[in-house]
Formats: sequence, structure tokens, C-alpha cells
Amino acid sequence: MGDVAEPIERIIEELRKLPGVGPKTAARLAYSILRRPREAAERLSRAILDVKDRIRYCSRCNNFSEEDPCRYCASPNRSPESICVVEEPNDILSIERTRDYRGQYHVLHGVLSPINGVGPEDLKLSNLWERLKEGTVREVILATNPNVEGEATAIYLAKLIKPTGVKVSRIALGVPMGSDLEFADEVTMSRALEGRHEM
Amino acid sequence: MGDVAEPIERIIEELRKLPGVGPKTAARLAYSILRRPREAAERLSRAILDVKDRIRYCSRCNNFSEEDPCRYCASPNRSPESICVVEEPNDILSIERTRDYRGQYHVLHGVLSPINGVGPEDLKLSNLWERLKEGTVREVILATNPNVEGEATAIYLAKLIKPTGVKVSRIALGVPMGSDLEFADEVTMSRALEGRHEM
Repeated sequence: MGDVAEPIERIIEELRKLPGVGPKTAARLAYSILRRPREAAERLSRAILDVKDRIRYCSRCNNFSEEDPCRYCASPNRSPESICVVEEPNDILSIERTRDYRGQYHVLHGVLSPINGVGPEDLKLSNLWERLKEGTVREVILATNPNVEGEATAIYLAKLIKPTGVKVSRIALGVPMGSDLEFADEVTMSRALEGRHEM
Repeated sequence: MGDVAEPIERIIEELRKLPGVGPKTAARLAYSILRRPREAAERLSRAILDVKDRIRYCSRCNNFSEEDPCRYCASPNRSPESICVVEEPNDILSIERTRDYRGQYHVLHGVLSPINGVGPEDLKLSNLWERLKEGTVREVILATNPNVEGEATAIYLAKLIKPTGVKVSRIALGVPMGSDLEFADEVTMSRALEGRHEM
């Protein structure tokens, strides 16, 4: 017998399996669910199953989507000439928020990481090669994360795509807007200098 | 039409209603649920409803519990001579982790807060007065949070309890001001119990 009742213990255990949720956060979430009306718990409970039942992978770009192809692949207003490669579906949201990109996407669902035993065969790549073979794509923008693994993945993909004649670009790495140079780490600062452009 | 599919939008919306979960955390949690097997989503979904269906208030101390009275009120190994008053049920866990306290509890489910319109009538107090009338209790330990509202609540309760002749003490300020009991480490919490002073 632990310090708390079994149903509370169990929900805390289930919540802890979510990313970034430690034991204390899980307890706080559990007690907040307990304090709210049953309908609120029902809505949350249903939303969790619904998202699993109604969302699948887009067969073209691997984005999570209710329809296949997804809204980005199906949209007539988005250029088929450029594909932006991202690690995860939520990276698409970061890019969409800029309202600057009107091309297609490709989601890898991972990143090369020899330390964690993730190789090219673990990334969703086959449908990317198929789309490149169609001959419509003119540019692939590599928008993997600006860290060791994201960089390595970008370099790996660039090496494979360049010989096909398609332009390959990498998002700029530099000091973030609203930040302070004083707090920029050496690698970021070095990249920011390296990637300077004439004004 | 937003940037994401409706079921994803809905689960993000539901997750955002949890404390400390902003839009980005909610998206991260939602995508992690999407990535895991359906059985994992089922377990989480079921745990959420179970905790609502099986957990009720202890009629004696207001703790969340599967049984009534709760394990603390029902335990023959816990002294009925002292009651530790806390704001929320999870505060009990912070105190239990010290293994230093073997008395009873009382959960207020709130704290006096004139700014938020919370007065004494909004706290669960009636069953505390009933228990004090039983005549067994010799000490009430006030373990409300060490912040303005928790202090005000402790002072309010001390004023009401003292005339009954029961000893009233306040946990020591070993817990840093402005923080939350939920995040106290065991040693700090233990010191706070040890250094309690009469009010």
C-alpha cells in the first residue's frame, strides 16, 4: 500500500509516461483532474482515444493527419516545387506560424543518432525519394533541429539529394531574435558570424 | 481550418486546461500520445475516468480517497491527538515523505484569498470543528503554504482554535517563503515539521 489510493497511483504512473512529466508534475495534473467535474475528465479521456483513432500518417509526407493525403499535400495553393524536411510533425507548426513558407513538407519522424542506435533505416525516407523521382521538386529545405544530430542528418540527406540535381538548402543557424549576444554560446555565435549577409 | 487536424486540435485544447500546460507543452504531449501504441492511450484514458469514478472525499478529513474514511483517518497506527491542516491533498504526500508525522490530517481544499474572493465559507472547515469538539485532539499543526495566503489562513485558524484550549502550531519556515509545499524536498519538509512553534 503506497501513500495514495490505487486509482490515483495509476493515473500518476500513466501521466509520468508522457515526455517532460516527472512524478511531481504527474501528481499535480492528477489532482487537478480530480478537482474538475467528471465531464472535463470525459472530454480529456475521449480526446486521447479520438486522436489515436482518427489520426494516421499522410502516405506522401508522413505528417499526422485525419485525411490522406494531408492538407499540405492536398492543397492546390502550396507549391509542389519545394519540400521542407522536418524531424517531427510539430516542427511543421513552427514553420507554418511564420506564414512565410508555401511549399510542401516531409516528416522524418526521427533524426540520425548513432548513440541511440538510430540509423537511416529508422527514418521515414522512402516516400521522400519517390517524390523526388517525380521530377517536380526544385528545392529541398533541410529544417532538422540545430543540434549535433539534426546537423548530421542534414549533412547525410544533402549528400544523397545533391547528385539528383535538386537544390538543397539548410535553414540559417544564428542568434535568435530578441536574445542577447552576451548569452549566445560560442557555436551559435560562430554560426551567426559565418552566415553573415551583406546589408 | 487551423494548422492541425481537428482531433489533434481538440486534445491540445483539453490538455491545455491542465495546470502548467501551455500550448507548446500540450502539443508535445499530444504528439507523444500519437506516437505511442493505442493501448497506451487506452490506459491513460481509462486512468483519467477511473480516478474520477473511484476517488471521493474522506468525510472526516476531506482527503481524496477510495475509501471513506481514508487510510489516514482509519489507521489504528496514527495518533488521533494531532491534526495537520493542509491546503490540498497532495500536500499530504510531501509530509508523508518525511516519515516524521504519524497523526491525522485535515484538507482545506483552498486557502483564504480576499483578492480571489475566497473567504472562510469557501474552505472545508465544518468537519474540522466537529473533530475538535470530540475532545481527543491535543494539537493542530498548521501546514498551509509559506506564502501570504497560507500565512493569513494559518493566523485565521489559530485565532479560532486557540480559545478551545487545543495547542496550535505552525510549521517552521524551513520551507522557503514564496514557494509551494508540493515542491519541497524531504529534508526541508522534515525541518519545517521539527521546528514548528506554538501560535
